Amino acid sequence: MKIRVIHAITGVTATWLEREEKILRSYAKPDTHLEIVSIRQGAESIESYFDIHIGSLNTLRLVKEAEEKGFDGIIITCFGNANLDPAREIVSIPVVGSGQASMLLATGLGHRFSIIGTVRSAADRHRIEAMKLGISAKLASVRCIEARVLSLHDDLDATLMAMLEAGRKAIEEDGAQVLIPGCFGMVGLAEKMQQELGVPVVDPAGAAVKLIETLVDLKLSQSKLAFPIPPPKKRDF
Amino acid sequence: MKIRVIHAITGVTATWLEREEKILRSYAKPDTHLEIVSIRQGAESIESYFDIHIGSLNTLRLVKEAEEKGFDGIIITCFGNANLDPAREIVSIPVVGSGQASMLLATGLGHRFSIIGTVRSAADRHRIEAMKLGISAKLASVRCIEARVLSLHDDLDATLMAMLEAGRKAIEEDGAQVLIPGCFGMVGLAEKMQQELGVPVVDPAGAAVKLIETLVDLKLSQSKLAFPIPPPKKRDF
Amino acid sequence: MKIRVIHAITGVTATWLEREEKILRSYAKPDTHLEIVSIRQGAESIESYFDIHIGSLNTLRLVKEAEEKGFDGIIITCFGNANLDPAREIVSIPVVGSGQASMLLATGLGHRFSIIGTVRSAADRHRIEAMKLGISAKLASVRCIEARVLSLHDDLDATLMAMLEAGRKAIEEDGAQVLIPGCFGMVGLAEKMQQELGVPVVDPAGAAVKLIETLVDLKLSQSKLAFPIPPPKKRDF
Amino acid sequence: MKIRVIHAITGVTATWLEREEKILRSYAKPDTHLEIVSIRQGAESIESYFDIHIGSLNTLRLVKEAEEKGFDGIIITCFGNANLDPAREIVSIPVVGSGQASMLLATGLGHRFSIIGTVRSAADRHRIEAMKLGISAKLASVRCIEARVLSLHDDLDATLMAMLEAGRKAIEEDGAQVLIPGCFGMVGLAEKMQQELGVPVVDPAGAAVKLIETLVDLKLSQSKLAFPIPPPKKRDF
Amino acid sequence: MKIRVIHAITGVTATWLEREEKILRSYAKPDTHLEIVSIRQGAESIESYFDIHIGSLNTLRLVKEAEEKGFDGIIITCFGNANLDPAREIVSIPVVGSGQASMLLATGLGHRFSIIGTVRSAADRHRIEAMKLGISAKLASVRCIEARVLSLHDDLDATLMAMLEAGRKAIEEDGAQVLIPGCFGMVGLAEKMQQELGVPVVDPAGAAVKLIETLVDLKLSQSKLAFPIPPPKKRDF
Amino acid sequence: MKIRVIHAITGVTATWLEREEKILRSYAKPDTHLEIVSIRQGAESIESYFDIHIGSLNTLRLVKEAEEKGFDGIIITCFGNANLDPAREIVSIPVVGSGQASMLLATGLGHRFSIIGTVRSAADRHRIEAMKLGISAKLASVRCIEARVLSLHDDLDATLMAMLEAGRKAIEEDGAQVLIPGCFGMVGLAEKMQQELGVPVVDPAGAAVKLIETLVDLKLSQSKLAFPIPPPKKRDF
Repeated sequence: MKIRVIHAITGVTATWLEREEKILRSYAKPDTHLEIVSIRQGAESIESYFDIHIGSLNTLRLVKEAEEKGFDGIIITCFGNANLDPAREIVSIPVVGSGQASMLLATGLGHRFSIIGTVRSAADRHRIEAMKLGISAKLASVRCIEARVLSLHDDLDATLMAMLEAGRKAIEEDGAQVLIPGCFGMVGLAEKMQQELGVPVVDPAGAAVKLIETLVDLKLSQSKLAFPIPPPKKRDF
Repeated sequence: MKIRVIHAITGVTATWLEREEKILRSYAKPDTHLEIVSIRQGAESIESYFDIHIGSLNTLRLVKEAEEKGFDGIIITCFGNANLDPAREIVSIPVVGSGQASMLLATGLGHRFSIIGTVRSAADRHRIEAMKLGISAKLASVRCIEARVLSLHDDLDATLMAMLEAGRKAIEEDGAQVLIPGCFGMVGLAEKMQQELGVPVVDPAGAAVKLIETLVDLKLSQSKLAFPIPPPKKRDF
Repeated sequence: MKIRVIHAITGVTATWLEREEKILRSYAKPDTHLEIVSIRQGAESIESYFDIHIGSLNTLRLVKEAEEKGFDGIIITCFGNANLDPAREIVSIPVVGSGQASMLLATGLGHRFSIIGTVRSAADRHRIEAMKLGISAKLASVRCIEARVLSLHDDLDATLMAMLEAGRKAIEEDGAQVLIPGCFGMVGLAEKMQQELGVPVVDPAGAAVKLIETLVDLKLSQSKLAFPIPPPKKRDF
Repeated sequence: MKIRVIHAITGVTATWLEREEKILRSYAKPDTHLEIVSIRQGAESIESYFDIHIGSLNTLRLVKEAEEKGFDGIIITCFGNANLDPAREIVSIPVVGSGQASMLLATGLGHRFSIIGTVRSAADRHRIEAMKLGISAKLASVRCIEARVLSLHDDLDATLMAMLEAGRKAIEEDGAQVLIPGCFGMVGLAEKMQQELGVPVVDPAGAAVKLIETLVDLKLSQSKLAFPIPPPKKRDF
Repeated sequence: MKIRVIHAITGVTATWLEREEKILRSYAKPDTHLEIVSIRQGAESIESYFDIHIGSLNTLRLVKEAEEKGFDGIIITCFGNANLDPAREIVSIPVVGSGQASMLLATGLGHRFSIIGTVRSAADRHRIEAMKLGISAKLASVRCIEARVLSLHDDLDATLMAMLEAGRKAIEEDGAQVLIPGCFGMVGLAEKMQQELGVPVVDPAGAAVKLIETLVDLKLSQSKLAFPIPPPKKRDF
Repeated sequence: MKIRVIHAITGVTATWLEREEKILRSYAKPDTHLEIVSIRQGAESIESYFDIHIGSLNTLRLVKEAEEKGFDGIIITCFGNANLDPAREIVSIPVVGSGQASMLLATGLGHRFSIIGTVRSAADRHRIEAMKLGISAKLASVRCIEARVLSLHDDLDATLMAMLEAGRKAIEEDGAQVLIPGCFGMVGLAEKMQQELGVPVVDPAGAAVKLIETLVDLKLSQSKLAFPIPPPKKRDF
């Protein structure tokens, strides 16, 4: 099984990538091939709809190319499901976003989950994604640690501490029973959070890898009634 | 008052533009200046998320430029609110989409409204926009006439006939009490529909012009808590 | 364009009226004629369903008379949309309430809005109006300043201070991104609130004037499928 | 126990009253005293918000008087809960409407219920009452037999036939599992409908009598936090 | 009228039973015969789904037997509606649970109610029952006093104190306007709570007795379209 | 990885088991050990809440035993999630039901899915499970083929034909974009349905196997805040 993992951002450093690849690899089946790619033009991180849209063209080209090159499935890493809707239209192979994958998994593990996000301005985007997914009733809260995406790795311990504090508040004040680190830059911290806080914590990388493997194995993909192939027309693409 | 009217598509012909300008003009106050522009690169019409996203970059540049040039407000013509969310982030002047404007107006006129759309694949996008706007409970149905956007003007009488038939079904079978032609290519037909069908029909062009004028006059704009200015970072824009 | 502005209360003083007329006038187009009238029998202010209902008969007579006298539209000033439903039944010209008008406008400006109301007992009535309008999901909270309607003008500065404090809490604790002063007695304060608090604040007078002008200009009115003309019968009216 | 039963209409004939009193009596406990009264000024039947509001003043006087005269509870017969909200504000004794009482009882008997109403224009009013009561999810449909209220008794057999047909469609096409005749003029037909259709049919008169007796016996009444006594002020009442 | 009152638990002591019977009796009509029974095998109290399910077999046998012995109706005392769904399938006589009965009554008395529960883990079960009943929008909160069910009577005054404190918070912080003691072990305290807190407090025992009497008197029962008699098959029962 | 697969029914024949084991096996990873067990006392199939509850005791013992014997996870095959809630309370290892697993997977593949069920009386149970899972908005319809569970295999081709017909109607009339065969007796037919109907069809067996493997691999389990271990007490278990 060949999976392309697409970063819809330009700012992933080599160190970051190395760590991330190891984490992704740890979740995948032995015979799953993961190819991680980033866009060349767009934003260095995704913290707004603006950041999503200026990378659209390049992300969608990587998506289209993946199908043409024979990949079996695609992961869009961005927790905000950047460009996921158009991506699911233009190919027939399954495309999953780490945000959707995490939320669906969390939905099955308790009555309410919370997302521990980065910048406060991301909260409404996450709420809207939950709403589009039809599971708003399960989303207890989005708690943000007020850290910029690219600064998360500056001091990973400090990041973890901030996430634990936000997670604790989500549990005690918002009634969360399951947590999700709400940024792909936060992958690899779920297990420690789970040990500290005593509730299930869904790693976005793990959720995404498992979901795409599940879909490919079960020969499932996004419904073409929901995401129809755009009919031919004059387009600059 | 200076308003920039942005087509997030490349396929608007001169004839189409001329007709549309006349219609827009008829709704505006005498001292409202309307400048209509189209993007240079993107799709010739919007019938998918794909079409929306490949025009993002160019649309957003026209949006940004409008603010820099001193416009007081922006209309994005596309009924599907193409690029509306990122557009509302990057400027402080008010930006309205014809879809949102029409739905808000229709919401106040009855208990349920229906949208008469173009291609069937647009229906779910319209439902999602209604959901994001918080008014799903008011949307009785989306009925599509199964016509491609750019073909709407091939035979405007036939288009009107198809819309009347769909509208009648929406009223009788879905309980609609108000109708909205769900494509900016359908502007100018609302009054005839209203006369034939006896229910209020909201013209997307009229709704958009009136809403942007209202916002500018009342010194209102999209909340920066909802659509914050994206913080500076490395971006290709 | 001739608009009748109806107070469904008896307690509007001359000073109050003068101030209010100036405000309403400032929002209207030059050629819009506004006639402001009050009922003779009812309650001096509206703070309960009881107050609404004892003024029904007189309010509805002013509504009916407006249509007979050739007015083009009607504004019912009461933020609680007093008698709005029956009023919309008995005439064909558009009737708007300042509450509905404000909420629709606020809905389009952010993900959540709050209402800054007068007495605490008004809060549930406002929530029910939002629910009837189909936009409950957008209403973050109703915060009340615990002031009787007719006392609002006793010390307008104190009123403004109380509203700013309530508005600040709505933003910080309830997640409001847009605010609405929830009483027609509070008109004229929106702009100052907006400057102080940095979020859009919708003036009920402005919203009502702009909406009725929009409807008249676009030849729209409440759907007669939603608000049918009551069939003839024996009635004391 | 003394209960005042208030008709918020003027058109109840002696024959009608006699039949109705017998039916109400059959549901009441032996020691429950029922006094049935009608308003003197208003509409002869309730088929619109207009009809509700022009009878408000007189209905509310009967309500207030009931408390003063020592009644223990009040039934407002109108299935549309006419004037119920203001009535519940101005007294401390419990006030129930036959519509609310029926819907609450039906809610507990199955997953979905339908209302068999009179004129089509009543349907939205019933839907809004269900929404205010918080049980919209349980309301499968409102099916109307297109008969004017005062004509229901012209041919009671024909009325029953029409109700059976509408009830059958509600069961088969809308998934109703419980039915409610949606007009107080339809009382006394529930048992026959139940026998014919094989689903529970809730009689509005039975539901109202039982609910008011329950509240009085359990010393319960509408919450004064929800329906506070309107504070004193200048009022024409 | 003969009603069987079923405890789906084994831990009801003689003292408890005596007190409870007196309370139940006080709510019933003079000619209502109440027979109170408990299961022999199951859990001593219900504080989890596990407790509900291990008593299912015995509870359902008591249910089936009640119908065979000619009872007219059944009350399942457990506030959590233990085994209510299967019980309503296997008999034609009406079966009510004290939780459903209380919530329906509370729904009609205000805009929002809160449940004062026992152990925290019961809260989600109560929320789910409210959801199944279709009235989630009315449930302001579930506040738990953190007491085990069988300890409630150890010091009834202390229990009452804890309930008053929780009730006060529900009113002030959650907006509750009506309260329900959320455990059958708490019956008989509603009146004192009501006096202290000034809001209606629904006693689960009173609600259950009144509802079953209402259903029997009105010849109503759970719809067999919602709770069909299970078709014959091989079963160990 | 050792997974116990529990049938909460007694009627699984040897032929059926053999076929089913092959199907389950085909979805599992090579190193996943699947042990399939059935209860000894209960109902031969699950077609009602009654059937679920009379098998509770035996099912829960198999669940408890699985944890004691060192299994890593549990699948409850029943699409109706029979005994899933109590099962998730009494163990710490993850327990999944095939209904929940399928619905979560389907939720991510389109805007609306439909369930193709067996007997009509199952439909409401499935709707309630969707509601408890928080995804009601995604459930377009439950279409039943009116076949008893144990008769599904009498003529598997006829069963498939009936399912295709129901699926087609769900797509065309209810707007379904994804389908789920709503009974574990229907496993193994998804792929053929998918080929015929052109929409994704989620096999309950595949969904359950993949979900439990995902949870075990990611070290996730149901939240103990949502499904707390029942505290010790007197119980017959």
